[in-house]
Amino acid sequence: MYHYSYIKVFAPATVANVASGFDVLGFALEKPGDTVELTVKQEKRVRIVKITGDKGVLPFDTKKNTAAVAVEAFLKSINYPFGIDIVLHKQMPLSSGLGSSAASSVAAVFGANILADDPLKKNELLDFTMQAEKAACGAAHGDNTAPSLLGGFVLIRSYKPLDVIKLPVPEGLSCVVAHPHTEVNTGDARKILKKEVSLSKAISQWGNLAALVAALYENDLSLLGRSLMDVIVEPVRSLLIPGFNRVKAAALETGALGCSISGSGPSVFALCANMNSAQKVGSAMEESFKEAGLECDLYVSMVNKKGPLLLEKK
Amino acid sequence: MYHYSYIKVFAPATVANVASGFDVLGFALEKPGDTVELTVKQEKRVRIVKITGDKGVLPFDTKKNTAAVAVEAFLKSINYPFGIDIVLHKQMPLSSGLGSSAASSVAAVFGANILADDPLKKNELLDFTMQAEKAACGAAHGDNTAPSLLGGFVLIRSYKPLDVIKLPVPEGLSCVVAHPHTEVNTGDARKILKKEVSLSKAISQWGNLAALVAALYENDLSLLGRSLMDVIVEPVRSLLIPGFNRVKAAALETGALGCSISGSGPSVFALCANMNSAQKVGSAMEESFKEAGLECDLYVSMVNKKGPLLLEKK
Repeated sequence: MYHYSYIKVFAPATVANVASGFDVLGFALEKPGDTVELTVKQEKRVRIVKITGDKGVLPFDTKKNTAAVAVEAFLKSINYPFGIDIVLHKQMPLSSGLGSSAASSVAAVFGANILADDPLKKNELLDFTMQAEKAACGAAHGDNTAPSLLGGFVLIRSYKPLDVIKLPVPEGLSCVVAHPHTEVNTGDARKILKKEVSLSKAISQWGNLAALVAALYENDLSLLGRSLMDVIVEPVRSLLIPGFNRVKAAALETGALGCSISGSGPSVFALCANMNSAQKVGSAMEESFKEAGLECDLYVSMVNKKGPLLLEKK
Repeated sequence: MYHYSYIKVFAPATVANVASGFDVLGFALEKPGDTVELTVKQEKRVRIVKITGDKGVLPFDTKKNTAAVAVEAFLKSINYPFGIDIVLHKQMPLSSGLGSSAASSVAAVFGANILADDPLKKNELLDFTMQAEKAACGAAHGDNTAPSLLGGFVLIRSYKPLDVIKLPVPEGLSCVVAHPHTEVNTGDARKILKKEVSLSKAISQWGNLAALVAALYENDLSLLGRSLMDVIVEPVRSLLIPGFNRVKAAALETGALGCSISGSGPSVFALCANMNSAQKVGSAMEESFKEAGLECDLYVSMVNKKGPLLLEKK
């Protein structure tokens, strides 16, 4: 009845917030990301049968694992008559500010949709990944799942109702992510923010975000660089990341267009005009983290325009 | 030595703030606006020799009149060897939230630049109009002068340094401005705003503004309408405009894309898909102001893409 009974899918890590776009903007990376294998089973239930690369940290409980939550909600919505076994290969650090839980749920639901012969469009899958985020972190955020699913830069204008806008990506735009080996708890990262901000800083922030959107449409990398400015969240959250100021300074000195915190950290991202520049900037950022006493993982890639990738089906 | 000794110029009124773009966004109207006549004089000084249409309210003092301040600063910067006499025809209401002082300074400096055989580009004239705004209202705002000078929608990312971005205008986009016969003091309109805003509202505001910019580039009028949402300033300032809620409801019910306060009010603007729609929306807004006991001036025009207009030179 259906074409495939097995599928293997990759979904990318993402940088949420993007300096001036706190809580409303994110973009996808070429790497790292998660790979998921799905196998159709007669028994009508969803199971996590294996997880690799997570050092035993992630839950097998289908009410808590984002891949399972997303797939279960999706299968229910389309009345799929079978069950699915999920094998989850974590190929990126957890709690790193790179949208790890989002990459898993996006890969899983993207794959499940193909197994069901594509009943839904890509953007119709977003809701299931947001339900998964809610199960995993208590809030139905979409600034990681939307870019992981849709690729490129994605703006979330509003959650109620959900209003998601895909933005253009300047040719060649590349990204460095440095993930220092330290932990920032997402809850702490949120608690440290004040509930009130000064109107003048908010104005500066929305001026920068509006200009960032214009820069993407205009292909204006200089304007993009000037707009990657966060006067509200970065000054507070950067306190939780040892060496942040030196790392950022090193990135800008070696030619990065802009540099800020990825998601709620501790990863730090820099956007660059091309891969050559990104390689140089990456080395400088790594060196600066070392000077602050931190080893880091370095990921250098183009901005990902496509989202999830089908690796194998049978 | 110079080509012309007399010039007559029109510069348009403007809508600043544009709902979600408080303090950073504005656009120009086809009408109303101000007309200025400039005549070159041997004596090296700037004079306001006549003002019409202001009911005697505007100053002749060249340190206070925005047209004179802008022209004086401009002439000084280029070492112009003559003086200029200015006749100012106010063809729009004062203190109405339509950038009246900006239209005067823009018309004057745009004309003076032509009299001097165009030594500066249009965007290089912006600084002089902002100096004039500072003389008139104490703050060097540019969200009226920039769109009046450059035409279309203009975003001001930052003032220090000045960073101004011209945005595209969807074909046919039209505007209604209803100016009710009541006064809102600009100072009061600013004082009534809180210096702190909630982070969650600020996020909602910058999500809307970012989407508004995307909508202009995408020519997406539906998204433009959804983005014309101000959760921070309009709820407070609208208290100063009798009947605002009814006027806004009437505009939206008759097909406006969005409706909010123009500048610091009391004028209310609505953006519409075309002139036909704008005519209908305008009548409904006028009717609603009447029900609230206020007469109003109604201006219906396309969004002005060009800025100032040369009317005559000799």
